[in-house]
Amino acid sequence: MFNVKTIDETKTLLRKFTQDYGLKTFKIDIDAALGYVSAETVYSQTDVPHFNRSTVDGYAVFHNVVAFASASSIVPLAMRGIVEMGKPCDLLLDNESCVYVPTGGHIPNNATAVVMIENTEVLGEDVLIKKRASKWDNVLLKGSDINHGAVVMKPNQVITDRLIGVLKATGVQAVTVFKPLTALVISTGDEITDRLPLKTGRILDINTHTVKHYLHKHHVRVEKTVVIDDNFAVYKETVIEGFKQYDLVIASGGSSVGTHDYTFDIMQSLNAEIFVHGISIKPGKPTIFAMHNNKLFVGLPGQPTSAYIVLHTFFSTIYAGIFRLKDSLPEAYLIAKLTQNVMGSLGRTTVQLVKICNDDEILVTPIHAKSGMIDALSTADGYIIIDADCEGYSEGDSVHVYRWGD
Amino acid sequence: MFNVKTIDETKTLLRKFTQDYGLKTFKIDIDAALGYVSAETVYSQTDVPHFNRSTVDGYAVFHNVVAFASASSIVPLAMRGIVEMGKPCDLLLDNESCVYVPTGGHIPNNATAVVMIENTEVLGEDVLIKKRASKWDNVLLKGSDINHGAVVMKPNQVITDRLIGVLKATGVQAVTVFKPLTALVISTGDEITDRLPLKTGRILDINTHTVKHYLHKHHVRVEKTVVIDDNFAVYKETVIEGFKQYDLVIASGGSSVGTHDYTFDIMQSLNAEIFVHGISIKPGKPTIFAMHNNKLFVGLPGQPTSAYIVLHTFFSTIYAGIFRLKDSLPEAYLIAKLTQNVMGSLGRTTVQLVKICNDDEILVTPIHAKSGMIDALSTADGYIIIDADCEGYSEGDSVHVYRWGD
Repeated sequence: MFNVKTIDETKTLLRKFTQDYGLKTFKIDIDAALGYVSAETVYSQTDVPHFNRSTVDGYAVFHNVVAFASASSIVPLAMRGIVEMGKPCDLLLDNESCVYVPTGGHIPNNATAVVMIENTEVLGEDVLIKKRASKWDNVLLKGSDINHGAVVMKPNQVITDRLIGVLKATGVQAVTVFKPLTALVISTGDEITDRLPLKTGRILDINTHTVKHYLHKHHVRVEKTVVIDDNFAVYKETVIEGFKQYDLVIASGGSSVGTHDYTFDIMQSLNAEIFVHGISIKPGKPTIFAMHNNKLFVGLPGQPTSAYIVLHTFFSTIYAGIFRLKDSLPEAYLIAKLTQNVMGSLGRTTVQLVKICNDDEILVTPIHAKSGMIDALSTADGYIIIDADCEGYSEGDSVHVYRWGD
Repeated sequence: MFNVKTIDETKTLLRKFTQDYGLKTFKIDIDAALGYVSAETVYSQTDVPHFNRSTVDGYAVFHNVVAFASASSIVPLAMRGIVEMGKPCDLLLDNESCVYVPTGGHIPNNATAVVMIENTEVLGEDVLIKKRASKWDNVLLKGSDINHGAVVMKPNQVITDRLIGVLKATGVQAVTVFKPLTALVISTGDEITDRLPLKTGRILDINTHTVKHYLHKHHVRVEKTVVIDDNFAVYKETVIEGFKQYDLVIASGGSSVGTHDYTFDIMQSLNAEIFVHGISIKPGKPTIFAMHNNKLFVGLPGQPTSAYIVLHTFFSTIYAGIFRLKDSLPEAYLIAKLTQNVMGSLGRTTVQLVKICNDDEILVTPIHAKSGMIDALSTADGYIIIDADCEGYSEGDSVHVYRWGD
């Protein structure tokens, strides 16, 4: 029988067993790097900004010359010139002069502050400074945003649109990233088919599709999907070939304790290290995680909703484990009011599918589906989690609602 | 000067002005449809399940024959046969017989219930039924999950991995979807360049990259990006060409009130309907939204962090408006404790970048960046929102933290 693990125990084991995954790296142009995981430390190729920049429209000055300027103690300065945006400024200040600089413009190399235009007045060829300035007021110093040589990307972080912007700003053109994971996705079951017309007794395969597209969304390349009967030899051969060619083998079906449930037996016959067989989650109990030749096997339940919930519950831990990402934060949620009672299942964490309605307040309604029903899967906007030690919630209770994150 | 709108006013206007976007549709295989927006109603091609299915391992019976069965009132039935998974069942019951059916198997066409194997005992060629059954106990009726002809996809919904699974389950092969939006992304500014080596006075372009990849992440195809000087004629020509070829034109820079801020003038000279010029958001005030020939122009601030925050704040409304999606729910959040005071800005909604730390509790630290700084953009894990009528929050306060949603 199952030696059932909790969700947290399972996550800890996944993190432990995936930590030495043999990952390959390659160099990629950062224009194409969105969503990849970095595999190197990258340093800024330049100071950002690489010249002292004004943060306002105003007059560059020596700050000590205007240190006591005010509306009643005006300091007149000679206008030495105007800086053009995007052009270097060759002008230098002295104690009697100032230079006009637009927002973002290069201030004279010896300027020490900029006075906003609002605090000045032009009188003939002079500029009257009416407000004091301290050193570096309204100046963004060379390198103060990012220093030349500063770390702009660490290894093992997901490359975001924002990071691409910063890499571009620092003159970086290409970065080393990990190759994306590849996967084989298997659906098993004598009743499962991907062929039309449908014969009585058969049902159309769902799991290879939901699993494939879920993984695709999360930057895993599913290079092959296959639907097979509950045939030990065929299933085992498929798994062996999968481990040879792909980084992950993910199967659904055949993972509970029953007549034709071969997943466990196949993992044993391969001498795989089965570190999870059964999780105290509802739905989703008959789940298997095993390592074979340092690659992860994921054995999901056959029921499509269960398979999806298990994948959704553990995928980010698997991904973070394999790529050694920083521990991810808890999932974000909405607080919503229940329109009906929901029952927990003592000893198991229940994932209850819900429909969300945003009226005057946010309301959630549980979607109750018999085992094997799949309509709920596309109807549900998200889910609530009822802990293993909680009997359930009552109508009117405020609960945390999680979205799928599409 | 700006006639500043609030965030909510801006969203309402975006929704209103984008509602009659001229969208084209095409047919796509559902294997390739992830993330597209549906453009038709799709009906199930089959009953799901398309036969009466057992939800347990057990014996199919007439429920009225075992209506009073119990441990002390055993009902013996003759074992008529065994149903194989995935095979049609041709056996029929009578009042004296039962048929073994595995979970998911086809029950005899005249069976009305299934008794779980745990509540039975085999004795010779008989099966002893030890528990009562009601009609349809442990049976998933033909069509009870999804009826043949039921709506499985409505128009104007985003196609998720879960929906693909359900479409596959109902025998749907291809669906009509809207063509993805295409966009031109422009960065303007005399100081902006995308060429190395960097000359003094110039800074490397960031916005075309962050905007392009942000849009890419959200299923918009950025077909061209361009960096141009603050040159009215060139900028205007670029915008006109953009409107001819793409669904969206998104520019950054040139949208505040200043010497070289041409965006507003160009929209006016095109007789575009400028429905937002200035938003009470910090950062991000100098933002323009306009319609030209029924296409949306987005004029973002030049400062990269501001541009990104404005895009992030309004993109989902733009996308939902153009594709007529159901109003989206409020953003999910985490509740976290502030490690420092943060200041609001009365009369403007402040978006404050933060770094999140998940220790014993979730902590957030504001990232303070001078105007023009970009390191904060890739350092920030998310942001908090300080309403226009809120002076700020104090160290130790619990606040809602929003993630970027990468």
